[in-house]
Amino acid sequence: KHVTEKVSTPTEKGAVTGKDARGTANLLNVLHPDHRPDLAHFRTGLGKPDDMDVKDDGTMGQHTLPHPIWTEEEVNKVVITHTPPQTFTDKLAYGTVKFMRWNFDLFSGFKYGKRTERKWLQRIIFLETVAGVPGMVAAMTRHLHSLRRLKRDHGWIHTLLEEAENERMHLMTALQLKQPSAVFRGCVIFAQGTFVTLFSAAYLLNPKFCHRFVGYLEEEAVKTYTKCLEDFDSGRLPLWSNMEAPPLAKRYWSLPHDAMMRDVILAIRADEAHHRLVNHTLSDLDKDDPNPFQPGK
Amino acid sequence: KHVTEKVSTPTEKGAVTGKDARGTANLLNVLHPDHRPDLAHFRTGLGKPDDMDVKDDGTMGQHTLPHPIWTEEEVNKVVITHTPPQTFTDKLAYGTVKFMRWNFDLFSGFKYGKRTERKWLQRIIFLETVAGVPGMVAAMTRHLHSLRRLKRDHGWIHTLLEEAENERMHLMTALQLKQPSAVFRGCVIFAQGTFVTLFSAAYLLNPKFCHRFVGYLEEEAVKTYTKCLEDFDSGRLPLWSNMEAPPLAKRYWSLPHDAMMRDVILAIRADEAHHRLVNHTLSDLDKDDPNPFQPGK
Ligand SMILES: [Fe+2]
Ligand SMILES: [Fe+2]
Ligand SMILES: [Fe+2]
Ligand SMILES: [Fe+2]
Repeated sequence: KHVTEKVSTPTEKGAVTGKDARGTANLLNVLHPDHRPDLAHFRTGLGKPDDMDVKDDGTMGQHTLPHPIWTEEEVNKVVITHTPPQTFTDKLAYGTVKFMRWNFDLFSGFKYGKRTERKWLQRIIFLETVAGVPGMVAAMTRHLHSLRRLKRDHGWIHTLLEEAENERMHLMTALQLKQPSAVFRGCVIFAQGTFVTLFSAAYLLNPKFCHRFVGYLEEEAVKTYTKCLEDFDSGRLPLWSNMEAPPLAKRYWSLPHDAMMRDVILAIRADEAHHRLVNHTLSDLDKDDPNPFQPGK
Repeated sequence: KHVTEKVSTPTEKGAVTGKDARGTANLLNVLHPDHRPDLAHFRTGLGKPDDMDVKDDGTMGQHTLPHPIWTEEEVNKVVITHTPPQTFTDKLAYGTVKFMRWNFDLFSGFKYGKRTERKWLQRIIFLETVAGVPGMVAAMTRHLHSLRRLKRDHGWIHTLLEEAENERMHLMTALQLKQPSAVFRGCVIFAQGTFVTLFSAAYLLNPKFCHRFVGYLEEEAVKTYTKCLEDFDSGRLPLWSNMEAPPLAKRYWSLPHDAMMRDVILAIRADEAHHRLVNHTLSDLDKDDPNPFQPGK
């Protein structure tokens, strides 16, 4: 099913000039040398593939669960939507997401100054380390519940695991482009500690709240990636506009051989829109209702 | 891939006589009426399918991860094996399993008296509620580690999830035959609470110990199911010897239409032998080594 591709490294593609002084070289390991040869000097320095956190030797993403492969039409017709909160639980979930987003935009400094590739990557990597938590926590909770209460699961676990893995693949894809700093890593570890604890407790108490919460998080994720695509189209992201998709992304989303970074962001946004639908749907169900989503759909 | 089968209920198969007074009726919902018609009166009372904890409406086990489908040759050539402990960690893992087994045999009363279908089911259900824990805990730990440390997983997670799901399917299969008592349920809940806590802590501290521990647990599981098969063959299990496999089991292991309970135990034993190999292998690896097991293999 998956194709093993040999990954081109800058060294294989020819000499590099070694002039980078901005620390953004690692953004650009996957820059195709045929595009914007004037940017070729970025492909050096800190970002040697051997130094990458997540070194793709061509085997990454080969053992993934079934997941949707989007058509060009599907990724382009994704729109920002909003499911109005109805119950008190819904309102609490919506309020929590709005509160978190407002604070995150403020403290991450995303609101201020120019949005660059660097800033976008920082934001995407951080958010995806959090986004991979709910699906896994929910899957484990339902699995242990089934074992402990001697009850069936009604087919939910696979969908939750697919979501968790898909978010982790978003992260792995973003990590192809950047090696985060020590301070950033500290923030990620702290955020996970807090979020895993709170989300696990919340899932035991009220799974409907949790799926609604994720539904609203995903509404925000679709907004975020839509804004990113707008930044591509308004010329704010010149590096990414000319950057080929990382081999991992081509493999995972079955993208065409000449796919570019913009295609990767389109695929990620389609995934987020799918999680939005899944989680709002699961929140509408009772925990013993059958899951209407089939594997990989 | 999976076939939706209509599940036959006793009612559909004709009138039942309602004489059961031993509380074992629920063992026998899947007893094929063509076998041992003298046992037909067992198919009544407590064990009406509507009362079952895990009511299979024909949709159970349809969303499962890829898993091995064993041939008749494969299930019959499974043997009891032992990987001698080498390191101190190995010895500790082996000692822990031996200690746990000795205590469990004692306190569950399995050592004493005649081994009946009832006693076997009790034991199998209890053990499988525990067996489903390690794979899920390990998968979640590695998933969160990957998110938190911004590192790849090296392909382990899918194998761990497959093991967890497979053990849960063993449990769901056994629950087709029995509705456990309140006291039993209390023991299951207590055992999970303890085991999840200890195993999670141990997996954070020393995954090699944990996989070795599961490897030794699975050595015991193969012994247990081998003894069960011996009890079939020595005539100790007359009810099961004449009982058709539950529809769920036929679906999950792709068993032939006329498969019997003995075929189910053979398939479960082959699964346990597979986990034995997987966990001893994973214990030999470092946590950043690639997982040699492919999905469903
Ligand atoms: Fe995501
Ligand atoms: Fe998401
Ligand atoms: Fe098992
Ligand atoms: Fe097992």
